[in-house]
Amino acid sequence: MKAFKIPEATVMRLSVYSRFLEQADRHGIIIVSSGDIAEGVGVSPAQVRKDLAYFGEFGTRGVGYNVSSLYQQIRRILGLNREWLVVLVGAGKLGSALARYQGFLSRGFRIIGVFDNDPKQFGRKLNGTTIMPISQLDEVVQREGVEIGIITVPAGAAQEVADRLAAAGIKAILNFSPRVLNVPSRIVVRSVDFSVNLEVLTFNLGLNTNKGL
Amino acid sequence: MKAFKIPEATVMRLSVYSRFLEQADRHGIIIVSSGDIAEGVGVSPAQVRKDLAYFGEFGTRGVGYNVSSLYQQIRRILGLNREWLVVLVGAGKLGSALARYQGFLSRGFRIIGVFDNDPKQFGRKLNGTTIMPISQLDEVVQREGVEIGIITVPAGAAQEVADRLAAAGIKAILNFSPRVLNVPSRIVVRSVDFSVNLEVLTFNLGLNTNKGL
Repeated sequence: MKAFKIPEATVMRLSVYSRFLEQADRHGIIIVSSGDIAEGVGVSPAQVRKDLAYFGEFGTRGVGYNVSSLYQQIRRILGLNREWLVVLVGAGKLGSALARYQGFLSRGFRIIGVFDNDPKQFGRKLNGTTIMPISQLDEVVQREGVEIGIITVPAGAAQEVADRLAAAGIKAILNFSPRVLNVPSRIVVRSVDFSVNLEVLTFNLGLNTNKGL
Repeated sequence: MKAFKIPEATVMRLSVYSRFLEQADRHGIIIVSSGDIAEGVGVSPAQVRKDLAYFGEFGTRGVGYNVSSLYQQIRRILGLNREWLVVLVGAGKLGSALARYQGFLSRGFRIIGVFDNDPKQFGRKLNGTTIMPISQLDEVVQREGVEIGIITVPAGAAQEVADRLAAAGIKAILNFSPRVLNVPSRIVVRSVDFSVNLEVLTFNLGLNTNKGL
């Protein structure tokens, strides 16, 4: 049991490292150094070593890391050594795009139900699943043991959907609505705000511009 | 000039603080403490003080921060004290959803052009802009002085689009394709991978589960 908190940025980098290792493994590479990983993903070798050190000793000094073993260990740390069942609520443009997003399934996230409150959407096929009325959310989550919910409804409906997901027994919510959600503390929530990503860019553009001063 | 590097997590939190301050300002609140901000956004008061300390002295000890002044200063730090012109390439589901995303304009990001290579899309209206052929990208970017490009094309087309954006003179790219882009070092790139967000959730679910052990 770790008494210290792992920085979220470390967790996000682990996810990036694991993709690099997966590719290296596919190319038949057996051993990599922290420098190889660093170069492959665009961080410093010291950062790679520091991130991994939170979780134990993985490599051999002077030799490097076994690609396949490190890949499996990072997947385990990230909770990706199993499949996660996911429901998605809100079958608009963004919801439809996410339901078709190939990157989820390749990392073990299987969207098994898409829900909406618009009767015109009911029955429409979306990447192998059928859009269902929100009234069936509870039943599907409980029958299938779904643990993750994705919210892609407008801001005005997001809290109500979060309440429904919480009541159905979901354990984690990925929220794409521009609204802070109130949920029981047992539920892990993460909100995605597309503007924040642009703001990291403009912050860095400001730094670049200042370089010349 | 700052010789040290600002952590990206700090930049992302500044963005979140600014939204909290905007709301507080709208509600007529004049002064807030680091504890108020911390509670409002779900981090520790020490984290708020540490994040702000990268950029100088903002508050008055024992009094707090002036809401309106801190809001304006964070907007300036993030480069949001001006409007940014944006083009979006790829008018599929995700591109269409982003072109309609209200959160961009409210933070000063104005999407003035949407491009695609599918003739069936040309001329379709999308939230006030008209979808144009990719062959017109150069002209629009240069005529309007566009600085930011958003890529929402499939992985196979992403590098070619990045090359076009770079050649047109764009300064920053927000990449939604699941592919690492090679661009000149003068261009700031940020990639959004939706799976990473789910993996932060499952990592935290793992921590929660282990709590009982």
